[in-house]
Amino acid sequence: MQIALEWAEKGLNTTTPNPRVGCVIVKNQQIIGAGFTQPAGQAHAEVQALRNATANGYDVRSATAYVTLEPCSHFGRTPPCADALVNAGLKRVVAAILDPNPQVAGRGLERIRAAGIDVECPVLEDAAHEMNIGFFKRMQTGKPWVRMKAAASLDGKTALHNNQSQWITGAEARADGHHWRARACAILTGIGTLLEDNPQLTVRAFPVTRQPLRIIVDSKLQTPTSAKALNYADSSGALIVYAVPNPEQQARLIAAGAELLYLPNAHGKVDLPALMLELGRREINELHIEAGSKLNGSLIREGCVDELLLYLAPSLLGDARGLFDLPALDDLTQQTRLRFRQIQQIGEDLRVLARFYPS
Amino acid sequence: MQIALEWAEKGLNTTTPNPRVGCVIVKNQQIIGAGFTQPAGQAHAEVQALRNATANGYDVRSATAYVTLEPCSHFGRTPPCADALVNAGLKRVVAAILDPNPQVAGRGLERIRAAGIDVECPVLEDAAHEMNIGFFKRMQTGKPWVRMKAAASLDGKTALHNNQSQWITGAEARADGHHWRARACAILTGIGTLLEDNPQLTVRAFPVTRQPLRIIVDSKLQTPTSAKALNYADSSGALIVYAVPNPEQQARLIAAGAELLYLPNAHGKVDLPALMLELGRREINELHIEAGSKLNGSLIREGCVDELLLYLAPSLLGDARGLFDLPALDDLTQQTRLRFRQIQQIGEDLRVLARFYPS
Repeated sequence: MQIALEWAEKGLNTTTPNPRVGCVIVKNQQIIGAGFTQPAGQAHAEVQALRNATANGYDVRSATAYVTLEPCSHFGRTPPCADALVNAGLKRVVAAILDPNPQVAGRGLERIRAAGIDVECPVLEDAAHEMNIGFFKRMQTGKPWVRMKAAASLDGKTALHNNQSQWITGAEARADGHHWRARACAILTGIGTLLEDNPQLTVRAFPVTRQPLRIIVDSKLQTPTSAKALNYADSSGALIVYAVPNPEQQARLIAAGAELLYLPNAHGKVDLPALMLELGRREINELHIEAGSKLNGSLIREGCVDELLLYLAPSLLGDARGLFDLPALDDLTQQTRLRFRQIQQIGEDLRVLARFYPS
Repeated sequence: MQIALEWAEKGLNTTTPNPRVGCVIVKNQQIIGAGFTQPAGQAHAEVQALRNATANGYDVRSATAYVTLEPCSHFGRTPPCADALVNAGLKRVVAAILDPNPQVAGRGLERIRAAGIDVECPVLEDAAHEMNIGFFKRMQTGKPWVRMKAAASLDGKTALHNNQSQWITGAEARADGHHWRARACAILTGIGTLLEDNPQLTVRAFPVTRQPLRIIVDSKLQTPTSAKALNYADSSGALIVYAVPNPEQQARLIAAGAELLYLPNAHGKVDLPALMLELGRREINELHIEAGSKLNGSLIREGCVDELLLYLAPSLLGDARGLFDLPALDDLTQQTRLRFRQIQQIGEDLRVLARFYPS
């Protein structure tokens, strides 16, 4: 199953909105075929692995399939994988974890078991859940897994008062950040960062076949049509979420190729929790946030963030801008609690992955 | 030598002002004796190891001694260890690193070599240097190795605006902090922290045979005679460093058992670099600092700090007090640079050891 998970990882950046799944076919203690989920609409991992075994000249009958997610039992863009495994005449199917998709949720394995095939599940369930943390969250809550990336000095500062912020962390950390962008379905920023840094919000540190959707939270539609985030020549698109209508600017931005989404809250700002639901509806599994301290603070305050991806540089900036605009507390018991998930040195910097406790 | 370093570590909290040294005697590929430096005035590691071998019934002649620091060649509080090794009739002496003490500095090994004994040095030099980082710095610069301990939330905050700060980090991190206090020769704080928290500045998480000297930077002599740091019933003493004379208060504090040190700079504050030299003169190898953001900021600004020992809690405090009062910068090139030395999770918190680059 460990090998199947390694195959799943090959689809880390490409399977969206489908989960990343790997499948390994084993016969006589030998791997005879392997595969991973192809981009949406194309073959899933199980079919890829069966095809691979056949292409290798093997007979898959009586073999065992190890698959990192319960095989699907429904017709989506492709026929059910459970049927493919049954038709292949396998002896045994080992699945890492049940599919959280309510259209599957145990039915895939049931169908396989009903065909007289041995079934085992779960195996390495935690690792399989991590591999598709966004897909699981979306299936279970309707919202994406939200990862907030930030870079700060060791004293928690992200920029000088004169806005200088490039670069606090080193080249390795910045390249590492692009790996996290690449696996996300969408990258979100705020109008403050857009006006200040004019970011492209794309993956550039290495070649990719898919760019994440670019999302700009821009309550008053201040995005200039010349913004780099709007002018990336591919089909990934840009979505501007606003709260104060402005027909003239709306027309201009639509003409510039942006999609507009009107999602106001009672205070004339973008309704962030509603945006998360809308992004879930649009099949965004993992949402990557790179914004400034104001939008970051709002997203945290409104309970929209699951995980912090924090790069800490070995430096001190002193009196400078902080990470998150969050209000002063009256008591330490009110602090926002997280738990460290992973800590690693990246080049000269420190990468901290920490998860918020569900409130 | 690795085993000798482990023996050296047994003296981590007790050898001050001497270095922590370990010695292992090996004969016929068997360890026949081992020892570590005893509290000042008592036997050094080499003598302890030779005695231990003899007590174990072994003949040390023709044996090899592994010692984590060059054996001393001068009469200090005890006779030279080089002579003890020569007199023991050893065949070979392996030393991890040369003694930086100008009274030794190669002469110890020379004396041994002159007696016809094989000598090898260095071996595991880096680890041996780390073991006595304070002793090396003091011998080379006349100043102690200064380690600044701080605890903050992940967004770099140490206390709420209402001063609440107990406790940001967990019990494991706080106990871990006492291990770093215990190895220090002295613990330094400022008058702000003393008035706010009334800290004892002692090691309490586990039993110790020696408490570090307590130092209070108190320019205007505002320390109350009732301060816990002055009233710890042992011989470790407390030193108050001031910059504005006040005969009445001086008399009161001396009567309360404190030692006073007048060390003003041109601005009516304590001259911190001069204090470091004075502490070096007093044979302080490792100085442990637990102060507030103001004194921390001054110490960093004035280049007095070698190392940050930072505990980061997995929490966010928002608008609250920061780690270090340092001025705003005009340009990122002016930032204070460090390098990460060690990163470890302690309980639910993160411990970061980072070193300042020599300016």
